[in-house]
Amino acid sequence: MSNPPILFTDLYQLTMMQGYFFNGLHMQEAVFDLYYRRNPYQGGYAVWAGLEVALDYLSGLHFSEDDLAYLATLGQFKPEFLDALREWRFSCTVTAFPEGRVVFPHEALLSVQGPLWEAQLVETALLNVLNFQTLIATKAARCLQAAQNSANGASIVEFGARRAQGPDGALGATRAAVIGGAAGTSNVEAAQKYGLNVTGTHAHAWVESFPSELDAFRAYAELYPDSTTLLLDTFDTLESGLPNAITVARELREKGHELLGVRLDSGDLAYLSARVRERLDAAGFPKVKIVASNDLSESVIESIIREGGRVDVYGIGTQLATGGGQGGGALGGVYKLVQLGGQDKMKLTGDPSKASIPGRKRIWRATDAQGRRVWDVLTTSGEAAPQVGERVTDPANPLRSARIPAGLTWQDPRVVVMQGGQRTGGGVALADLQARAREDLAHLPEGTLRLLNPHTYRVSLSRGLQERRDTLMGELREKHNL
Amino acid sequence: MSNPPILFTDLYQLTMMQGYFFNGLHMQEAVFDLYYRRNPYQGGYAVWAGLEVALDYLSGLHFSEDDLAYLATLGQFKPEFLDALREWRFSCTVTAFPEGRVVFPHEALLSVQGPLWEAQLVETALLNVLNFQTLIATKAARCLQAAQNSANGASIVEFGARRAQGPDGALGATRAAVIGGAAGTSNVEAAQKYGLNVTGTHAHAWVESFPSELDAFRAYAELYPDSTTLLLDTFDTLESGLPNAITVARELREKGHELLGVRLDSGDLAYLSARVRERLDAAGFPKVKIVASNDLSESVIESIIREGGRVDVYGIGTQLATGGGQGGGALGGVYKLVQLGGQDKMKLTGDPSKASIPGRKRIWRATDAQGRRVWDVLTTSGEAAPQVGERVTDPANPLRSARIPAGLTWQDPRVVVMQGGQRTGGGVALADLQARAREDLAHLPEGTLRLLNPHTYRVSLSRGLQERRDTLMGELREKHNL
Repeated sequence: MSNPPILFTDLYQLTMMQGYFFNGLHMQEAVFDLYYRRNPYQGGYAVWAGLEVALDYLSGLHFSEDDLAYLATLGQFKPEFLDALREWRFSCTVTAFPEGRVVFPHEALLSVQGPLWEAQLVETALLNVLNFQTLIATKAARCLQAAQNSANGASIVEFGARRAQGPDGALGATRAAVIGGAAGTSNVEAAQKYGLNVTGTHAHAWVESFPSELDAFRAYAELYPDSTTLLLDTFDTLESGLPNAITVARELREKGHELLGVRLDSGDLAYLSARVRERLDAAGFPKVKIVASNDLSESVIESIIREGGRVDVYGIGTQLATGGGQGGGALGGVYKLVQLGGQDKMKLTGDPSKASIPGRKRIWRATDAQGRRVWDVLTTSGEAAPQVGERVTDPANPLRSARIPAGLTWQDPRVVVMQGGQRTGGGVALADLQARAREDLAHLPEGTLRLLNPHTYRVSLSRGLQERRDTLMGELREKHNL
Repeated sequence: MSNPPILFTDLYQLTMMQGYFFNGLHMQEAVFDLYYRRNPYQGGYAVWAGLEVALDYLSGLHFSEDDLAYLATLGQFKPEFLDALREWRFSCTVTAFPEGRVVFPHEALLSVQGPLWEAQLVETALLNVLNFQTLIATKAARCLQAAQNSANGASIVEFGARRAQGPDGALGATRAAVIGGAAGTSNVEAAQKYGLNVTGTHAHAWVESFPSELDAFRAYAELYPDSTTLLLDTFDTLESGLPNAITVARELREKGHELLGVRLDSGDLAYLSARVRERLDAAGFPKVKIVASNDLSESVIESIIREGGRVDVYGIGTQLATGGGQGGGALGGVYKLVQLGGQDKMKLTGDPSKASIPGRKRIWRATDAQGRRVWDVLTTSGEAAPQVGERVTDPANPLRSARIPAGLTWQDPRVVVMQGGQRTGGGVALADLQARAREDLAHLPEGTLRLLNPHTYRVSLSRGLQERRDTLMGELREKHNL
């Protein structure tokens, strides 16, 4: 996906920047945390994605003369401020979870620390990229989880270019879908850009362009003798498409080739895939793969498997291209000021589950004796790992608390990914991000992986952080007579 | 939004093109129709958007040497075919509804006529652009409809950059939202690119960066004395934000300026906006506008108005940025071969509502004596306008028929927008597209505009077209023994 240009921002970021500038606040050291409040899809986790794109965006960010000339036309910005923007560079320190890791609600997934007017400007673009990528990577992980519940360990591929939100939205969706576990894509541009497996079959129009379905299948197989997947449902899957495909599979074998697969694109995919598998096996083609497509999602995949379907590859379109309409089409990530000039900050709200968590912080993730990740604890930035017996609280409900048990080892999964506006590491290949997500998911408790009604992974505030939040909330309530 | 590059396509378009090429079919004249089957949001209409982007994409489309070099690496394409691609140009004729017009299910919104291998390649990009833009324009039209049901005729603005699917997805969403009726956007890049009104307030971080809310409001108003909209909910909307805003409004007035607006971003927006309006009016500020934001949609806007809310401007984020999760996040537009080499084509299916409508066709739209658009009839390409008394049928159910009444005047709303691969007209400004959509919506029957359970606008097949479809379906069933 493309990098956001610097003017990809909400106007108020710029009007606030000018205000900070003329009020002498712009160089105050700020800390903003980016986090979300609820897992997408009512699931047990999210797969953190988009970080590499976000860091590319931040690297070398500056205003061009054209940008400044446009801003001058808006009539709201003074020449002195526009001159200052000419020198503006992004010099903040960014701490974040490595891309591809599994994350949970309330965690500071990314923190930006540096001059207020720098950290403020980048809010819109960071949220845009990270909300979108995390949503799609999580959807892909869920779809793959569903697919792998079958005996043969099916795979998923991304087929959604025609349903994505613009061509660049499609590129971004493919990128995130691969991180979440997609084995390939039908999108040629995405394959070129990210070095991915590109895959496909043929369309109904191909079949309709020949005198008969068998003619169409033969013509395709002749041209692609080792990579043909035949679409069976132009006329009738079991009565026409399948017998013609078996004929072509035999003809290919006589010439020393093997039919790669068949594709089902309508009807009862569980029933049809089971019948197609039986007949392919009976005809001597147990290795011909069955590809299924048509409005697939993790729940449709689950139902196909539950009903005895025998699909090897799920081609997923709309749901991987758009995230499937979760929460109106977006992850609700937010970016909140938590510290300014050394003072902790928070936004009060009538709903305590939406109050922000003030101050700089660390995140500690526990691994149990079986190697599973079982608990994340947010602490103040000065604190060490949680202590056995320490009472920690639920970020959305301070009345719910628990004691830290023995037998856990703690690590801080976040790393400094940018220092003084410079990246601390190189880019990571998508295949490595996919492997990282696989690894993390493999070490979650099984209940947390459940697609519906999962066990809630524990995320807690340390006693120190809870006390800081309580104190600040009390001060703000007093000050504002609330 | 960006134009799709030529490699933004599903792999199978290219493998089929090669197949057409080596089977001597590539230059056969094909006709593809682009249409959708159900109105988005269970509504009564869609606003057709994206055509100008699609035509830009098609204009001068060709393969670069880099494109061909990449395709060669895939190992599926023969040198002779890649050489032919080097000369490939888009030379088709495109007939379409003008962008911004109101459209309905089953209508050929856009038809591509020309060599099979040209018309095939562009499927993915056309569907991507037109599905996305039409979805968002329709959502915006629905939101504006809801907003305009208030006595003061409120407006909508697009605030969704942080929730859109990538930065380019945000640009595209803004473009379509404006066609559907948004009066402005917060997205600076979109405003620059499309010449739009750019608008905004300030964030909670602004308030938190000053010693007090009143200090923060004063600082903002001093810098923007004629364009300040104050965010009221950082601490408490009615107890803190509103009294401070009224203080600042008085101070501005003393200096000869007026506060522009206040913004509500949480809580019960109906209740709060009514109280804020009362107190602003009582304090002598009846012209200060109330802006509301926070997960708005057409149904939330309707409920705010029903409950006595007094909002002047609805700032809509996620729902305009993404379309709000409709159908998993996409309009289900399809692109189907309807004629090849002079022969009508159709895809059979078990579900008759999903069978395609074969052949080249025209669309006739009726206006009644009151100037309302009331009926669309699809005919074969040779037919004249429907005749009084002619029996026409429902495209999704041939058993439902009706007779054409007297008193209607018929026009074909589609135009040839590209001839021989060249555009026939220039681009149209977004403001003109918005006006066209407004005009069309103003002439729909009221029941069709209803947001929930609308009256179904009549779309019918002429007797000639229905007979053609029946005949072809019979032939195909016989041929395939179905």
